[in-house]
Amino acid sequence: MNKSEIAALDQNDPLRSHRDKFELPEDIIYLDGNSLGALPKGVADRLSDVVTQEWGKSLIKSWNVHDWYPQPGRVGDKIAKLIGAEQGSVVSADSTSVNLYKLLTAAVRLNEDLNPGRRVILSDTGNFPNDLYVIQGLVDLLGDDYEMRLVAPEEIAHALTEDVAAAVITQVDYRTGRRHDMADLTARAKDRGIKVIWDLCHSAGAFPVDLAGSGAEFAVGCSYKYLNGGPGAPAYLYVTPDLQESIRPPLSGWMGHTSPFDFDLDYKPAKGIARNLCGTPSVLGMHALETALEVWEDVDLQLVREKSQRMIELFAGLVDELCPDGGFSRVTTFPEESRGSQISLGHPDGYAIMQALIDRGVIGDFRAPNILRFGMTPLYVSYSEIYQAVEILADIMATGSWDQPKYHARSAVT
Amino acid sequence: MNKSEIAALDQNDPLRSHRDKFELPEDIIYLDGNSLGALPKGVADRLSDVVTQEWGKSLIKSWNVHDWYPQPGRVGDKIAKLIGAEQGSVVSADSTSVNLYKLLTAAVRLNEDLNPGRRVILSDTGNFPNDLYVIQGLVDLLGDDYEMRLVAPEEIAHALTEDVAAAVITQVDYRTGRRHDMADLTARAKDRGIKVIWDLCHSAGAFPVDLAGSGAEFAVGCSYKYLNGGPGAPAYLYVTPDLQESIRPPLSGWMGHTSPFDFDLDYKPAKGIARNLCGTPSVLGMHALETALEVWEDVDLQLVREKSQRMIELFAGLVDELCPDGGFSRVTTFPEESRGSQISLGHPDGYAIMQALIDRGVIGDFRAPNILRFGMTPLYVSYSEIYQAVEILADIMATGSWDQPKYHARSAVT
Repeated sequence: MNKSEIAALDQNDPLRSHRDKFELPEDIIYLDGNSLGALPKGVADRLSDVVTQEWGKSLIKSWNVHDWYPQPGRVGDKIAKLIGAEQGSVVSADSTSVNLYKLLTAAVRLNEDLNPGRRVILSDTGNFPNDLYVIQGLVDLLGDDYEMRLVAPEEIAHALTEDVAAAVITQVDYRTGRRHDMADLTARAKDRGIKVIWDLCHSAGAFPVDLAGSGAEFAVGCSYKYLNGGPGAPAYLYVTPDLQESIRPPLSGWMGHTSPFDFDLDYKPAKGIARNLCGTPSVLGMHALETALEVWEDVDLQLVREKSQRMIELFAGLVDELCPDGGFSRVTTFPEESRGSQISLGHPDGYAIMQALIDRGVIGDFRAPNILRFGMTPLYVSYSEIYQAVEILADIMATGSWDQPKYHARSAVT
Repeated sequence: MNKSEIAALDQNDPLRSHRDKFELPEDIIYLDGNSLGALPKGVADRLSDVVTQEWGKSLIKSWNVHDWYPQPGRVGDKIAKLIGAEQGSVVSADSTSVNLYKLLTAAVRLNEDLNPGRRVILSDTGNFPNDLYVIQGLVDLLGDDYEMRLVAPEEIAHALTEDVAAAVITQVDYRTGRRHDMADLTARAKDRGIKVIWDLCHSAGAFPVDLAGSGAEFAVGCSYKYLNGGPGAPAYLYVTPDLQESIRPPLSGWMGHTSPFDFDLDYKPAKGIARNLCGTPSVLGMHALETALEVWEDVDLQLVREKSQRMIELFAGLVDELCPDGGFSRVTTFPEESRGSQISLGHPDGYAIMQALIDRGVIGDFRAPNILRFGMTPLYVSYSEIYQAVEILADIMATGSWDQPKYHARSAVT
């Protein structure tokens, strides 16, 4: 595909106008929106207003007069629309890890009522390690023969056997970009009485997710990747309406109490999804997120999906064409229906190559041991930028400019 | 005390100059800094910079180039100085509730090794109910005959008996302002092998706290009250260096891993306090907090303590003098060494009276069932304001202007 064909793709891109909703530096090509989404316009002003006018002037009264109090549910309802969830089934709160702990614990306890004796918490080796750490923490606490069982990602469907109490499945693999079939795995799991907690970190805002339609029961996710909520933005959790009244959250805090301001000495869980709230929410972070979510009001996620797949194809084809001797392996080899919104390449010197790319203004990221990862965020990245990015990669490989000590030196976050 | 004597107190107040560090609306008297601290100058600009320059321009690179990654420990070290904790013994993370859950669970597990068979988690009825909810959530999860035992605040010293596994003690009672003796209770608890988690929500920034000197082992606290970190600011937790390597956090997440970017499938806790981190921190909230903490760089907390006590005495004396027939009971009756930084009055119509006060620009708050609560924040409240506040209260009581339907109507947050 030549440059004029690529320019035509951009010209005809139905999502083209959305780029204006973001503040993007001019000198970079940002292919890391799957790690930290770009800054939506309006966030800085809104946050300034929250700080100076709401906190600064209305002070404590803001909880009422500026509607801080209902914000976790309000933001949750906005996210719900993007992940195919019913209104009233999502709240924004805490981090993904903490939310996963809440729901996994709740799922294990439901299992104890429904299928006593099951002691396996299932996940796959393609899951984000953090989620495995959360499982390990809970298994260690519960004792009583609970165990984590890990299988290869492609084995997960067959591993949903009747000794499994609960499963934690991240829909899109952070390294490879493999996407699990949510509807199929959910159906298999429910058939065997297994509670699944879906991690949507690399799904929400990347493509249409249909939690309700898939029959999913539990989900968590972050909002700082494709949802552009800002660094460390509050995460969210989903519980199907059918189970909301049955679950007992382990992290029972005052924001999840049925009457927080009665200051009752006994915990009485709120009705519905709100019982999954715990402590005081991050009001500043949640305002940034709430404003960032306005981006999605007129976005068709199916178009986002289509463009992301076209970008992946374009990227892959250009690597083959422009870097034939680059030594890259294709990590993201899956058919379109089985991949997320990123393309990953393998290279033994992946770390240094990525640092050289970043130095040239192409921002992707590196994931150990050898993966160069490029996220596709169709709202603010053009096809022409994909072309330029691969041109720069090809130049780096052809000149060997990546092979310098400064690019091999590891920093804390890579 | 007459007005000119009060003006002299302000004139001679060694903390007087600190008020300039805050953005305060001119038309109110803010006596609710024990609920949400005032906005320090500099926070809005710093946050704007973090959003537009760091997130907006440096994007994902900010984790390295703008030092987001080490921030939880860096902020923790700044808080440590204010609560008498060793450097490297505090991290900023999550909410107070989540941190309390982490440390209480860790303490219970230490108990299982040290004193197997103990099943009581002790607290007192003056604790903030949220903390009791966290205990209840853990007890419910642990099963195995664990129980919460509640005693009256004045009974807590004698209730530290050898069947107690762990105790959760909030140093200052959010309703009455009673302050527990940290050194004495810690010594008694250690003598009986009991792990105590101190909640410092109403302590940090209100008076000198000496965790290390008291021999305290665990503590948590919020940063949005006397520390002025902003609404829902990240909380913190403390673990004595002696125990940091012994504890197993139940919420094991990637930020507490010894090598988060190795993406190891096995959780290996970081050395030291960092293992108590879990998910991705709230970067925006933590920057607001870090800037807010600059306020304390040249503050002597002993002077803060002295002024707060003088303000309480002044307030109490003026209520007696100006509202002799107001029908107020004195809730904060404790001697100076046993009180925090607030004064609470009881009144059967406390809610409506507080709403009338707020309507007149005196911001305190109401705590069920009948408490009017006034927080003393010596850095930005003057003695003259205390006088004016009580004058307004006296006028409201003398005219009966509080007794209107609009003041009786309850809102969500009170």
